[in-house]
Amino acid sequence: MKKVFASIITIGDELLIGQVIDTNSAWIAQEMNKIGVPVKHRVAVGDVWDDIWQALDEESKSADIIFITGGLGPTADDITKPLLCQYFGGKLIMHQPTLDFVTHLFENVLQRPMIERNAKQAEVPDVCTVLKNEKGTAPGMLFEKDGKIFISLPGVPHEMKWIITDSVLSIITKKFNTGFIEHRTLLTAGVGESFLAEKIKAFEEVLPVDIKLAYLPNYGMVRLRLTAFGMDKEKLNQHIDHQFNLLKENVKDVLVIDEDLPMEAVVGKLLKQKNKTIATAESCTGGYIAHLLTSIPGSSAYFTGSIVSYDNRIKEQLLHVKKETIETFGAVSEETVKEMVKNVLHIMQTDYAVAVSGIMGPDGGTTEKPVGLVCVAVADKNKTITKKFNFRFDRNRNIQLTATNALNLIRQLIVDNS
Amino acid sequence: MKKVFASIITIGDELLIGQVIDTNSAWIAQEMNKIGVPVKHRVAVGDVWDDIWQALDEESKSADIIFITGGLGPTADDITKPLLCQYFGGKLIMHQPTLDFVTHLFENVLQRPMIERNAKQAEVPDVCTVLKNEKGTAPGMLFEKDGKIFISLPGVPHEMKWIITDSVLSIITKKFNTGFIEHRTLLTAGVGESFLAEKIKAFEEVLPVDIKLAYLPNYGMVRLRLTAFGMDKEKLNQHIDHQFNLLKENVKDVLVIDEDLPMEAVVGKLLKQKNKTIATAESCTGGYIAHLLTSIPGSSAYFTGSIVSYDNRIKEQLLHVKKETIETFGAVSEETVKEMVKNVLHIMQTDYAVAVSGIMGPDGGTTEKPVGLVCVAVADKNKTITKKFNFRFDRNRNIQLTATNALNLIRQLIVDNS
Repeated sequence: MKKVFASIITIGDELLIGQVIDTNSAWIAQEMNKIGVPVKHRVAVGDVWDDIWQALDEESKSADIIFITGGLGPTADDITKPLLCQYFGGKLIMHQPTLDFVTHLFENVLQRPMIERNAKQAEVPDVCTVLKNEKGTAPGMLFEKDGKIFISLPGVPHEMKWIITDSVLSIITKKFNTGFIEHRTLLTAGVGESFLAEKIKAFEEVLPVDIKLAYLPNYGMVRLRLTAFGMDKEKLNQHIDHQFNLLKENVKDVLVIDEDLPMEAVVGKLLKQKNKTIATAESCTGGYIAHLLTSIPGSSAYFTGSIVSYDNRIKEQLLHVKKETIETFGAVSEETVKEMVKNVLHIMQTDYAVAVSGIMGPDGGTTEKPVGLVCVAVADKNKTITKKFNFRFDRNRNIQLTATNALNLIRQLIVDNS
Repeated sequence: MKKVFASIITIGDELLIGQVIDTNSAWIAQEMNKIGVPVKHRVAVGDVWDDIWQALDEESKSADIIFITGGLGPTADDITKPLLCQYFGGKLIMHQPTLDFVTHLFENVLQRPMIERNAKQAEVPDVCTVLKNEKGTAPGMLFEKDGKIFISLPGVPHEMKWIITDSVLSIITKKFNTGFIEHRTLLTAGVGESFLAEKIKAFEEVLPVDIKLAYLPNYGMVRLRLTAFGMDKEKLNQHIDHQFNLLKENVKDVLVIDEDLPMEAVVGKLLKQKNKTIATAESCTGGYIAHLLTSIPGSSAYFTGSIVSYDNRIKEQLLHVKKETIETFGAVSEETVKEMVKNVLHIMQTDYAVAVSGIMGPDGGTTEKPVGLVCVAVADKNKTITKKFNFRFDRNRNIQLTATNALNLIRQLIVDNS
């Protein structure tokens, strides 16, 4: 059986001048992988007729399925639709079901007057199959040429995702009898990529050639991913699971979880399992740890609340940190975060709490307390643990690293209590 | 003078299976634009020898500067360095200054034992110019072939950025006498892309052909960007500024700011100018608004703190929302957010405050109060304004939209007070 490959073309000047970060490609790639269609190539071009045309020519040489995202908006800088119409030799016609839906959308949902520009979005090339879009005004379009399929989708992420989930996945799996790709990913924390590589050297040396290992480092954590491909789903799973178990055994002392979950989801999962609650007291992260924890659906079951004490006055008034503590040791000190964490645990009446204070930069550092210095405390009723970090990166990275490391500390405390 | 174009090749299976989102390309594109080098093409390939080789061949056909990011890590899945060595006909040699730096890094900064794998990162092809990397162990490498330059950089964002800023920009501007690209971007809020297009139709119709207009919609806001290219920087600036002033005039009633700033930076800028302070009381956004405000450097000058009251108990105990209010009107009601905002203003002793409560989904909705229902309140000492929204998207999008709209409401209040 022939292996099927996909390619993704993203269209838009905003991608090329760096004003927008492309998150669509990553999502499409994940969905294609799940149905056994590896994405071999991705390309980004501007809103330029010849460049788009050439990308269509090029990508269809090596791929069987070509995704085209972006360039379908109602405004004049979008040239994708007329181009596709010409490329596939069709002419634009009004698509009545889409027009009906767009009309309904404006009348009943958006409750705004519909203008001609919006109605024009219901025009499609007569040589395409229209892919319904219930989340917006621009429908998806599917074209076939020389046994390859071309799928044009709007660039707005939630519209693109809706169309792929609603119709594209089933069209592809029906048309191409694809094989399967399996991935197994685990999360480690606290050691670098090189150290980890040394640790699993022996495992890696005897890893079967049909299984690939990848290191994915990110903010003080490294994910390890095994990938294998095959036509027999059951055999494939047995094969990769066997190697994954060996890998887990090799990294067990730095293993966070044997799933592809972010740290905040791991903490949430543990709290939910054990029916425990958590609160945070945040200075330098400004609510980011609370945001990460509450970004997980269902987090209201374990997340109680947070006091963000950016100003030292709030540390004293709301978190009852002693004035002397701040005066003697400073706001960024293990003594201060210890009081913050104990008091927020008491104020919020939770089982666990996290507190952080640090200097995120670019300004505010001193010789004694440089940018990147962070104190973290985690606590339950019986125990308080504090730890000092020196990150010394830029503001955004320091905030990220503080959050990740604080969440890992509370995770360890929860696990130790089990 | 010949126009110079750049192309970006990103290497890594993690990009193709969608496990990692590529933020590097956007950053590189922004920097290249600033020095007048448009990025015409971007391509992503896996850790596959032939695919990388082909991408180098392809991209060097149309671009003068080819960036290659990723694939330089210390682990076995990285094949980029040996490939580049072969592609440019060199052999690997030890680069002593890099080895000295890596040794220093392990001894004095990381304070971890250095292993052979790390030392190997100091090996480079003898046909390249080494680009110093003070932020990590893998140096950048610059190759020249047929008048084109190839720049290989590590995939870790802060390392890549450091190398480009430290050496790459000056190398490019020296080698290629490039022209200039100018962008002007403004931010609007509260109206959709189509409506905006209708509003500026007349402007767009007479816009000179050498100026491009782009619509960049994002979470309830639309940015409008003008782009022009030229060799005379002063003339270019006059030309684009003239059109930008006309554009501003056309959208003045929905204009947030005439810069490319996110909403949280606009609010921060206003508060700083007026020497005022702000606090938030957040339920459904879980600290996200506080995080946005504190993501801006220098925000400690105006951001005081936040009470994240995820649990209704915390709304009562810490924000002193009356039990009857929640019982009568519910936690998601204009009455509740009104009390939240008034009380947090008083508790934090700030000039302004924002409060939000809503149902972010996917669970927790009812017929009466569906997922996406959000109540927002903003206040100063004299005035409290509440507003109800119906977003009805997914959790992440609902959180984003709530934050953006809440920040826009407080912005309007601050502006109205001026």
